[in-house]
Amino acid sequence: MQDFSVIGKRMPRVDALAKVTGEAKYAADYEMPGMLWCKIVRSPHAHAKILNIDTSRAERLPGVKDVLTGKDFKGWKWGWMPKTREEEPLAAERVRYLGEAVAAVAAVDEDTAEQAAQLIQVEYEPLPGVFDPEKAMEEGAPQLYDHVKNNVSWDFHMDFGDIEKGFREADLVHEDRFVTGRVITGYLEPPAAVAMYDSSGITIWAAKQSPYFVYRHLAACFNLPLNKVRVIQPFIGGGFGGTKNDSLAGDFCSVLFSKRTGKPVKFVYTMEEVLMTCRRRHNMIVYNKMGMKKDGTITAMHSRVIADGGAHTAIGPLTMYLSGSMSTLPYKLPNFKHDAYRIYTNNPIGAAMRGHGVTHTRFAAELQMEMMAEQLGIDPVAVRLKNAITAPHETVNKVTVKSCGLVEGIQTLAASDSWKNRDQRKGSGPVVHGTGMSATSYLGGARQRGHQSCAAVLRLCEDGTIDYLTGATDCGQGSDTVLCQIVAEELGVGMEDVDIKRVDTAVTPCDAGSYGSRVTVLAGEAARRAAVDIKDQLARFAAREWEANPEDIVFKNRMVSVAGSPEKTMPFEQLAKIACYSGSGAVIIGKGYSDYGIDVLDFEKGIGNCGTSYSFTSQLTEVDVDLETGFIRCTDMVIAHDCGRPLNPVNVEAQNQGAAIQGMGQALYEEFRMDQGRTLNPNLADYKMPLAPDIPRIEVIDILTDDPSGPFGAKEASEGAIVSTPPSVFTAVRHATGIWFKEQPLTPEKVVMALRNRKQ
Amino acid sequence: MQDFSVIGKRMPRVDALAKVTGEAKYAADYEMPGMLWCKIVRSPHAHAKILNIDTSRAERLPGVKDVLTGKDFKGWKWGWMPKTREEEPLAAERVRYLGEAVAAVAAVDEDTAEQAAQLIQVEYEPLPGVFDPEKAMEEGAPQLYDHVKNNVSWDFHMDFGDIEKGFREADLVHEDRFVTGRVITGYLEPPAAVAMYDSSGITIWAAKQSPYFVYRHLAACFNLPLNKVRVIQPFIGGGFGGTKNDSLAGDFCSVLFSKRTGKPVKFVYTMEEVLMTCRRRHNMIVYNKMGMKKDGTITAMHSRVIADGGAHTAIGPLTMYLSGSMSTLPYKLPNFKHDAYRIYTNNPIGAAMRGHGVTHTRFAAELQMEMMAEQLGIDPVAVRLKNAITAPHETVNKVTVKSCGLVEGIQTLAASDSWKNRDQRKGSGPVVHGTGMSATSYLGGARQRGHQSCAAVLRLCEDGTIDYLTGATDCGQGSDTVLCQIVAEELGVGMEDVDIKRVDTAVTPCDAGSYGSRVTVLAGEAARRAAVDIKDQLARFAAREWEANPEDIVFKNRMVSVAGSPEKTMPFEQLAKIACYSGSGAVIIGKGYSDYGIDVLDFEKGIGNCGTSYSFTSQLTEVDVDLETGFIRCTDMVIAHDCGRPLNPVNVEAQNQGAAIQGMGQALYEEFRMDQGRTLNPNLADYKMPLAPDIPRIEVIDILTDDPSGPFGAKEASEGAIVSTPPSVFTAVRHATGIWFKEQPLTPEKVVMALRNRKQ
Repeated sequence: MQDFSVIGKRMPRVDALAKVTGEAKYAADYEMPGMLWCKIVRSPHAHAKILNIDTSRAERLPGVKDVLTGKDFKGWKWGWMPKTREEEPLAAERVRYLGEAVAAVAAVDEDTAEQAAQLIQVEYEPLPGVFDPEKAMEEGAPQLYDHVKNNVSWDFHMDFGDIEKGFREADLVHEDRFVTGRVITGYLEPPAAVAMYDSSGITIWAAKQSPYFVYRHLAACFNLPLNKVRVIQPFIGGGFGGTKNDSLAGDFCSVLFSKRTGKPVKFVYTMEEVLMTCRRRHNMIVYNKMGMKKDGTITAMHSRVIADGGAHTAIGPLTMYLSGSMSTLPYKLPNFKHDAYRIYTNNPIGAAMRGHGVTHTRFAAELQMEMMAEQLGIDPVAVRLKNAITAPHETVNKVTVKSCGLVEGIQTLAASDSWKNRDQRKGSGPVVHGTGMSATSYLGGARQRGHQSCAAVLRLCEDGTIDYLTGATDCGQGSDTVLCQIVAEELGVGMEDVDIKRVDTAVTPCDAGSYGSRVTVLAGEAARRAAVDIKDQLARFAAREWEANPEDIVFKNRMVSVAGSPEKTMPFEQLAKIACYSGSGAVIIGKGYSDYGIDVLDFEKGIGNCGTSYSFTSQLTEVDVDLETGFIRCTDMVIAHDCGRPLNPVNVEAQNQGAAIQGMGQALYEEFRMDQGRTLNPNLADYKMPLAPDIPRIEVIDILTDDPSGPFGAKEASEGAIVSTPPSVFTAVRHATGIWFKEQPLTPEKVVMALRNRKQ
Repeated sequence: MQDFSVIGKRMPRVDALAKVTGEAKYAADYEMPGMLWCKIVRSPHAHAKILNIDTSRAERLPGVKDVLTGKDFKGWKWGWMPKTREEEPLAAERVRYLGEAVAAVAAVDEDTAEQAAQLIQVEYEPLPGVFDPEKAMEEGAPQLYDHVKNNVSWDFHMDFGDIEKGFREADLVHEDRFVTGRVITGYLEPPAAVAMYDSSGITIWAAKQSPYFVYRHLAACFNLPLNKVRVIQPFIGGGFGGTKNDSLAGDFCSVLFSKRTGKPVKFVYTMEEVLMTCRRRHNMIVYNKMGMKKDGTITAMHSRVIADGGAHTAIGPLTMYLSGSMSTLPYKLPNFKHDAYRIYTNNPIGAAMRGHGVTHTRFAAELQMEMMAEQLGIDPVAVRLKNAITAPHETVNKVTVKSCGLVEGIQTLAASDSWKNRDQRKGSGPVVHGTGMSATSYLGGARQRGHQSCAAVLRLCEDGTIDYLTGATDCGQGSDTVLCQIVAEELGVGMEDVDIKRVDTAVTPCDAGSYGSRVTVLAGEAARRAAVDIKDQLARFAAREWEANPEDIVFKNRMVSVAGSPEKTMPFEQLAKIACYSGSGAVIIGKGYSDYGIDVLDFEKGIGNCGTSYSFTSQLTEVDVDLETGFIRCTDMVIAHDCGRPLNPVNVEAQNQGAAIQGMGQALYEEFRMDQGRTLNPNLADYKMPLAPDIPRIEVIDILTDDPSGPFGAKEASEGAIVSTPPSVFTAVRHATGIWFKEQPLTPEKVVMALRNRKQ
């Protein structure tokens, strides 16, 4: 094993001090002289034509500086793909979900803006709405877009092997319907920004996990070259996909207000706006059909997925792609068919969220596999080991796995006392104890074709310290810390010598952002390469000092030396000074980018890798189920996670814990209650996310594999456990109650009803 | 001649719109929530011991948040060289000039800070002062530093050839005493900054022409690594050397206040503070001895220079170095001796200013040469052409000249009607007209050993536009525009495609700053190399598209093509997209730095090049002299300037005009009136800079040479004419009046007195 200095150590976060002291500035903290406040006016109808907007009363309110309606954007629309550009900053003629933005006001302060927003009178002609994706697919259902038949926003199909032959070879075939949750990300910081438009172009301080997305959208909307759009990244109070991955009405309106008024313009969404109108996870209906031999071998799977897409397409095509392309992991699957339909409804927009696309289908397949194994009398561990892949592996759709700790993870959990004694610990009520298992996989280092690389620029200061520029965003996951570790390790300097700068699209290199568990894998590899570039440059100076070969220069523990010549050694700082003061001064700048290339990737057919590597998560969850109240409490979780090499184990632990808690919320508590497109619980009291007393003991076991593609062998460690948690909770509840539940969330009502039905 | 697209064109300034609309933010425009104001308390004595400082009354004033005295800096000092670290942020025990900072206050607003500053009671023990550098050198004079004998702050000696032999070979030897002016830079923006100190280190928005100087000083003063100091460059309202090239009491105090209070802290010097206490040009006494043959050939020169250094050394050693090392241009000089003494006095500090070090000695030598030629009956043009160097040339102290337009410049002026008819146009009074000439040289691309390079980082955006990062500062000279031209020309794109970012030491590459006419030459060459780096990367993608050689790819007029294959062509933007979207995305970043190396440079002995190239300026100046009032008005100037290739002729013109006006101010109007170390005219009404009605017609003729070392052949174009103007004014006055004046400024009093003496 390599002898690491900072890699693999439990390093404290580089942003900890700024955050705990309150120094860290978030977008909402920015105040500028003359700044205006922007408020958005939203539709109270889920589906309606806009007949007229009367802004005159708002305009007359003292303190109001400007008012915008959809017409001011002149028909400009954005979307994830050229053919899905259908979302307007402000809807001009028609609203398709309750809460869609229709107008905006800018005023001298927040209260005035709020008051003015209420004075804007919009005349609507309500249209019939459709809120259930299965009903929306039916002939005669209300149509959201005139040119789209049956409200199919996006469909995606895969067909590999011989699905019929696979089912014929099976001894048991199951078909089941699973339903996954209508949930949202739980960031504490709502979307916010301060925008400025002047002769230098746009500057916006915006809470974005992918600043370069809004950078492109603003350039397109305002018809500016990209180097005239500057998205500056304050600290981010959580992201998790969805809202902060995309542009919002507030972004476009605040910029346009600034352009028209010459003032900086700020917006901060309320938590009600977030919960009513922002992007959320697609809730899906998964019809899963699986074939299994008597020995537990899976022979075929056909999944039919119907996703509630809400009013616009957004990033939905990628969700659909992931729902299928990742279904061929973590188990051997020779025959696979997948039909995914993303359906427009008059609900808020379905989009990305941690565990993007995979949580749904993995939940279905994982439960179904264990249901069938149970029917065939096969142990939950045995059926998993029977089908588990090992590395190297290529799936039927050409996903290539280079490292895999799945078997070791399952075996580790299976060897635990918790698992071995699970039946003894069950008890007889009224509170029964259950233990469940799951095994899943998630991609890391997501990349498609396109400008998707990460890059790093490192500047060596003459005192040997390093300025590190990256476009990768730390939205709370701790990636800044891991990235600094990578730079420090490769350069052989201390963590405290590396200072990572906040993202600023004008100066930091282009980066696709924080999603798809890509920062450690891709931005990390870019950083490592930039550090190697610095070393290559410095080694030439060192070699000249010592008349040695540049290849023999070693960087370690803030010292530089010639391999095998212990007398030829000097502090790193000294070499930095020698280089920077050589001649009239060398300027040492290192750069690197994550150019892995794309071997095979067919987005239309679901072939190939859209990840750089794949993590494997095995999870054991224990629950207490109160048979009288139906209340479920998770008591323990053990997560055996293969993230390649854990670069910062405390961070890996925290990421897995956070993902598991979020997954537990989805499995047990969280659910938007909807009525005709209206969110009935748009506040954190009624939309129940897990609170501190709900958190079980969570143990994270690192299954070390050393992936050849990641920096220092790292893979992803931020999304795996949100995929593994729901099925492990459901198998635990099955163990406790004997009932297979197939719908999220597993509320007390559902448990009580099911127990009552069973008794009858 | 090369076919240029943007080079050589009269391009409007890239910062013009921001400046004329008032959008451009200068340091004093920054406002931050909770910001405090800092005011400096200054000594009313030119030389005194500090016995006690009572801050209690100031501290009790409501609104005062903090008070600092010298002790708070714990003895830390800074200086230009390790052995000249003698200046304290606040003097702790002794003041050496009137206006030296002794304490500082921070308060909630400017008025309160001002009031509190007046409440600070400092008890002094006055010491005898010395204010004349020649008297300060005498035995028994008051001593400023106990360890320095005879108040010699710095001395510098050169001795090349055989000086005695040179004088023996001469037919005429003159010895004269010349005095140059006690003047200051005329920026409209006073020094200002807003400083913030938090857990991320120091951030300071500061008006600095060399931000990386204060960056190093702050790191040293506050014991921080360099990557924890961030100097952000607002727009700069003029620099010209001196004050904005160095750190100030306000910089250190505002940072320390911020550290102690946790608030942002701002200071803005008043114009009175600037004129009373800030760095100014060294006034010098030049004893010049020259030998000349009957044919006008200069055989030897010995200059003895005594400079008034004021209370601290600052950048004075470089001034002294330049006063001698540049004396061997623009005339052949086989034997040269130079003895320069920088003398401490209890005056404000002498430092750099446009034409640094050279204006003094060139003024003396140029006048003396013409005086001697006149005595020998040699025409002013003939004596100049007799001695003028031609390229290539190596001076006796190994300054190497690769291009030289001196002879062409002199001949151009000599061929003009103005010159040819000068005697006819003289008139007989009471207003007489005179025409004078001068020829001078100045260095461009100043660099010494050390971290003195410039660098550039270019980021290619996927739409083909460019983000350009440089540490070089545009302090009003228009260099941002020229740098963008260089990038655009080399990449074959439009000026509007290149966006230069403001300097920010955390993200822009290290740069020594704006001084020594170095930006176009060094930052420009770095930018050109970075553009070549971008082209090299892009050419590989183009070559792949067309199956061509990367070397054959041509970038021109926003198009990319294969040389000789007109059908293989595409827009630059298209190639940018191909590259950025190749695979999972290439990240195209170009970098370059001005690594010319140092061939020969001995700072102690005055040997070698501290410039990269040398400009040559010939100037013809016409004056009206009122023989009754002594008032002199410049009516016309023609400046034949060899700046290599003028990259932006309108900028070259403006720079020459500005320098000539500044030189005219020094020659005729400007002078600090001093009394025992007190500046008597610290305001712009009494310190007379030229105003609009004083400005003559100024014609600038570009003498095109194509220097091999500069980007696109460019040399300097910002300091030459401040060297050539004073001697051309004085020779013009001689022509008008028949009197040789040798002291700046040439005030009406001096003219009237001289005329009166002559009559007697």
